[in-house]
Amino acid sequence: MLVPIDLDAEFARLTEHWSPRVVGRVNDQYVKIAKLQGEFVWHAHAEEDELFLVIRGRLVIQLEDGEVVLGPGQCVVVPRAVRHNPIAAEECWVMLVEPVATQHTGDVVTDRTRSIEEQLA
Amino acid sequence: MLVPIDLDAEFARLTEHWSPRVVGRVNDQYVKIAKLQGEFVWHAHAEEDELFLVIRGRLVIQLEDGEVVLGPGQCVVVPRAVRHNPIAAEECWVMLVEPVATQHTGDVVTDRTRSIEEQLA
Repeated sequence: MLVPIDLDAEFARLTEHWSPRVVGRVNDQYVKIAKLQGEFVWHAHAEEDELFLVIRGRLVIQLEDGEVVLGPGQCVVVPRAVRHNPIAAEECWVMLVEPVATQHTGDVVTDRTRSIEEQLA
Repeated sequence: MLVPIDLDAEFARLTEHWSPRVVGRVNDQYVKIAKLQGEFVWHAHAEEDELFLVIRGRLVIQLEDGEVVLGPGQCVVVPRAVRHNPIAAEECWVMLVEPVATQHTGDVVTDRTRSIEEQLA
């Protein structure tokens, strides 16, 4: 039998900011959730689009030509190779869809980089 | 500049039940929304997983070995080749993630089948 994924329950288990957690897989994409607060890091994913869907709070995604502001029920796809920097003034909950291969910090490795093994734990 | 997708606004444009609408693309997957009411049709997608995320209402997905019940904020991935039949006693709003190639009625063609051109319109 299939087991439903309850996003609220999954978010409740997440304590660390900027540390995505894989909650499911659909084809060659992972569905992840993350709690964001503060500013992340400018980065791009050379080959991979990334979907951000805001579940709670407000997310600003800075882009080189402006910014996108998302509230609950709003999403955006950051196309491959587009440099972006997510910022959440207050805690924000997001669902992400991105390829199994995606490193969440893209071309940048920082102390915030989490391996896929950590995201699956 | 990227344009955010507002799911409520997209749902407001959807008038027909069981008629998915493409709202975005992330890599080789479409993000779709649909309003469901009543019973659909038993089908399977031979090669494609399908994610159902309930935004509003309640969705029952019948499976050959039981059923999954989803409320708002709950999702499930129906794996490829698994026969399933979605049922919504009252109107239910869902977000779907499935490959660009997926026919929403899978291996079954009925008068409910919508071409991808119709879903993109």
